[in-house]
Amino acid sequence: MSRRGLLGLAVGGGVAGLAVGMGAGLTGGVALGRARAGEGANPVYEFFGEHQAGITTPVQDHLHFASFDMMPRTDRDDLISLLQDWSYAAARMTQGLEVSASGAVNGPAEAPPDDTGEALGLPAAGLTLTIGFGPGLFENEDGDRYGIASRRPAGLERLPAFLGDDLDPQASHGDLCIQACADDPQVAVHAIRNLSRIAFGRARLRWSQLGFGKTSRTTATQATPRNLFGFKDGTANILADDAAALADHVWVAADDEPAWMTGGSYLVARKIAMLIETWDRVRLSEQDTIIGRDKGEGAPLSGGDEFTAPDFHGSEIDANSHVRLAHPEQNGGVRILRRGYNYVDGNNALGRLDAGLFFLSYQRDPAQFIALQRRLSTDRMNEYIRHVGSGIWAIPAGAAPGSYVGAELFA
Amino acid sequence: MSRRGLLGLAVGGGVAGLAVGMGAGLTGGVALGRARAGEGANPVYEFFGEHQAGITTPVQDHLHFASFDMMPRTDRDDLISLLQDWSYAAARMTQGLEVSASGAVNGPAEAPPDDTGEALGLPAAGLTLTIGFGPGLFENEDGDRYGIASRRPAGLERLPAFLGDDLDPQASHGDLCIQACADDPQVAVHAIRNLSRIAFGRARLRWSQLGFGKTSRTTATQATPRNLFGFKDGTANILADDAAALADHVWVAADDEPAWMTGGSYLVARKIAMLIETWDRVRLSEQDTIIGRDKGEGAPLSGGDEFTAPDFHGSEIDANSHVRLAHPEQNGGVRILRRGYNYVDGNNALGRLDAGLFFLSYQRDPAQFIALQRRLSTDRMNEYIRHVGSGIWAIPAGAAPGSYVGAELFA
Repeated sequence: MSRRGLLGLAVGGGVAGLAVGMGAGLTGGVALGRARAGEGANPVYEFFGEHQAGITTPVQDHLHFASFDMMPRTDRDDLISLLQDWSYAAARMTQGLEVSASGAVNGPAEAPPDDTGEALGLPAAGLTLTIGFGPGLFENEDGDRYGIASRRPAGLERLPAFLGDDLDPQASHGDLCIQACADDPQVAVHAIRNLSRIAFGRARLRWSQLGFGKTSRTTATQATPRNLFGFKDGTANILADDAAALADHVWVAADDEPAWMTGGSYLVARKIAMLIETWDRVRLSEQDTIIGRDKGEGAPLSGGDEFTAPDFHGSEIDANSHVRLAHPEQNGGVRILRRGYNYVDGNNALGRLDAGLFFLSYQRDPAQFIALQRRLSTDRMNEYIRHVGSGIWAIPAGAAPGSYVGAELFA
Repeated sequence: MSRRGLLGLAVGGGVAGLAVGMGAGLTGGVALGRARAGEGANPVYEFFGEHQAGITTPVQDHLHFASFDMMPRTDRDDLISLLQDWSYAAARMTQGLEVSASGAVNGPAEAPPDDTGEALGLPAAGLTLTIGFGPGLFENEDGDRYGIASRRPAGLERLPAFLGDDLDPQASHGDLCIQACADDPQVAVHAIRNLSRIAFGRARLRWSQLGFGKTSRTTATQATPRNLFGFKDGTANILADDAAALADHVWVAADDEPAWMTGGSYLVARKIAMLIETWDRVRLSEQDTIIGRDKGEGAPLSGGDEFTAPDFHGSEIDANSHVRLAHPEQNGGVRILRRGYNYVDGNNALGRLDAGLFFLSYQRDPAQFIALQRRLSTDRMNEYIRHVGSGIWAIPAGAAPGSYVGAELFA
């Protein structure tokens, strides 16, 4: 595959594989997140559309998240061609196709295959690929490398330090990100691997994270999953069919700045290590108090069931419980769309599992996350967690069919 | 949970949860690997039986493999109680139950819960838990700690060094192992986490490995999966319904030594890092030559389809191709049962994915693996792989209902 081997195809947009289903996803408020075939066993999601897929899409079972840095001495054309190539290949892979028509086995025998092949025979598995731009892409110590510094969203900067941060640079930041979600981890891994390969010479993988089990839900029909503390998580998440909440809290509006971000969002990633062996020695009543919900049902300690609104007027819910501090009612109505996953990265030398939550949230403005995270500074749960990774990216709107993610930034 | 809190229950065997399905799995040659409910979406496998589950069981989608070392100053009673407690909890978890009747939320509020809770609401997901004994359990630099040195199987010793080994002690060896396989990674992780917790004070997690996507099949109805080189793997594996091959190559026979291993097997684990970025630059024809099969169909280069026997008489299949060197016909009929998984552990500082194959094989005698691995010393594939982890464990027969894995060793 030549360095820009896919470019011609990408801008043309007339390739057979891409033509399938084009034009769908461009109508309606929350058009993405719609399975085109086999809603159950093998959903297929549009890549093109008003918004990028992978935000309101029903949360898939597996995550491979990747952060990239642009290579030294790359220019604006390199960046544009990379985004075009990524969009082209992403549009194909999300439809269950190989990265190109010749793929793993149909190209010339005397050349390396375009596609690495480990997803041959596997369905789309609900794959979504969501592409974002980090603060350093707009301007870093090398200056305005791509001529876009003036177009940087005002809020797109590295997150401020929070109490208790213990960030590993090898799990933080990055010029670009790709969130790959699928119901089969081999499909998500295949996508990140092939997009890394396509980036050769232009961008390089900085860090990546696998996740499973999800810790959020984005549709009312998904059961609320449990995090590695054993508690239900995401009960009060913004759901994909709540158009008003999405408009208020998730999507960048037409009168927000900058205009090229209209229909986009901002993604915050936080790798949160959980001290699970310590947590597991906490008595049940104390665990409930720390969270502010009961472990079994997930009901607020003020009473009711999982979906009963917490009543913060009485004393049942501790003043520094997680549910109280994180609740919109206690934060001037601030809400975010959460989409995180559990992770286990083996174990440390003491025999403790290196495990936790890979937190992902989408919001209309990074200030929403910052306000909530500051509010959590007295969270009683902090004794059992460490934030070890952090990143923020602008997530442009979805690409129009035949175009590419971020085209408006370069227009 | 007291240090031996589960012991009384385990030896009694009369707990309601355990009573379910007891006695099944003890008849017939390959009784294990049988789903009791919902073969498709939610299989449930017996823990008790003639053989341990997780060997001929249809390969599940996810793996969490854990290696443990016994703690200093533990004695024979500690080891026996640990195996009893593990067997008790494993028998429950494989049936979709919590580790104990009080579990995550039904115990006293003023005590830490018995179960960590993150699998609450999840089905059994085909969970199998397979327990093994490493060479060091029988005798190590501290001597015969558990009074079992005289009962060590002659072949159970650390594998010899192989050409190209680059072993990381943090991914190798261990006194005990548990192979957790399930169709939901959260279920497999929950099992290893809770078994580690139960081991507190007696054994400590040494290393663990997550895997996905499997690279083998053990039933004819499973499609042959692909490894991260993009090739089908496991085409010629021993299948669960091939009783003759299992008897010849996998299960320790009654006239093998030692007698306590009858009905057991030997497990070899090899963590094999794949240099996938290098592999991905190899031309398709060369990839095919190295493997000896074509990438698309998995057919041997001598012709036919995936399941056609390779013909090694002609020159189509390279003398040092993987398929030729590994084939039973080229190895005096030696066969093994493979049960490996793909892994991705993030990436290294160069931006290359830290990925490969977590190879697992079961055999009647460790000499089978050693012979095959030595034969692979000239494998052309070696240029693209590195063996970075290694372990060997004796896998006792399955436990009788109410008993525990390894009881015969201490009889």
